[in-house]
Amino acid sequence: MMILRSSPPSPFGRKVVIAASLLGLSNEIEYRKADAGDAADTLRRENPVGKIPVLILEDGTALFDSRVILEYLDHRAGGGKIIPSEPSARFAALRLQALCDGVLDASLLVLYENRWRAAERHEQKWLDYQNDKINRGFAVLEATPPGIDPIPNVGQIALACLLGHRDFRFAGSWRAGNPKLVAWHDRFAAQVPAFDATKVAA
Amino acid sequence: MMILRSSPPSPFGRKVVIAASLLGLSNEIEYRKADAGDAADTLRRENPVGKIPVLILEDGTALFDSRVILEYLDHRAGGGKIIPSEPSARFAALRLQALCDGVLDASLLVLYENRWRAAERHEQKWLDYQNDKINRGFAVLEATPPGIDPIPNVGQIALACLLGHRDFRFAGSWRAGNPKLVAWHDRFAAQVPAFDATKVAA
Repeated sequence: MMILRSSPPSPFGRKVVIAASLLGLSNEIEYRKADAGDAADTLRRENPVGKIPVLILEDGTALFDSRVILEYLDHRAGGGKIIPSEPSARFAALRLQALCDGVLDASLLVLYENRWRAAERHEQKWLDYQNDKINRGFAVLEATPPGIDPIPNVGQIALACLLGHRDFRFAGSWRAGNPKLVAWHDRFAAQVPAFDATKVAA
Repeated sequence: MMILRSSPPSPFGRKVVIAASLLGLSNEIEYRKADAGDAADTLRRENPVGKIPVLILEDGTALFDSRVILEYLDHRAGGGKIIPSEPSARFAALRLQALCDGVLDASLLVLYENRWRAAERHEQKWLDYQNDKINRGFAVLEATPPGIDPIPNVGQIALACLLGHRDFRFAGSWRAGNPKLVAWHDRFAAQVPAFDATKVAA
């Protein structure tokens, strides 16, 4: 049995749960909630960077971050399923994942500004810089939304988790002006039961 | 000819230059300096997240981030060179890369605190939180330093770039108390000429 250290609101942790479901591996993974803010949690020994998700294998190896875990799960399921083997499809999927992960990183920094700093110490230039990354990412994704493979690839999984994160943390403000992505979100949710199953109530 | 958008002080950009050299691909890449802080730079069109490095392929495809670029270069060089094919070696390399990239992310956030905010608005709790990640990462790396493969893998390349970054940006403070990593750094530098060749003067 593998152990997943994560927390339901984490978009990166959600990637792992959805990937495991798509690959038929959910029954081989025990979910053990982690609190990245709690110094007493074993998380910081499992991953020195102290971030979730971490996947602990049967031999005790702790794998992180989400990209490495997704590649491992794909390998464990035989390979070539959520990370295409064919090079042009593979690098398109990896590139899309990097884009969505990058937008997520910017979005989390916006969130952390509120979590870590008093309002009078917020730095508007920094928030603008991060929000510009998010807005440019959404503009490109809305202009040319990706497809959805029969088994969605890591890029498509990451996009779904990005949209879910923006729904949960930013009241779905992305929906205005991005009708193609709204349709994409709904198609993904209809095709992948694990997406709604991992939705966190706002 | 591929085009690399990067900047010499970037540790993630340095990973790409070293990887290209190890794979014999340096002559197929034109280095075109990018300024992530300049809104007029084409970088933000090449990568909506606005981060370096970006590798632009002959067909115009812009690949990012550094991990995706390293995997692409490995593929282009025939595969299995800087990312081992054998699963246990592969995931050890990818995990090491994720650890070093994660420590780098924390280190850059410490740097950005100074770059983006007036001293009186620095948030010590946040800086402590990031520095703890860095210190835990170094403690684990010092306790069990990795090997150095005949062609160093992506994890080893990332570690070298992490150490170089801490030398450049934090006056080599990591060296005190980490003698095994100092020895590792020197072995890597002796084996990989591209490491010293990409060193930025402090």
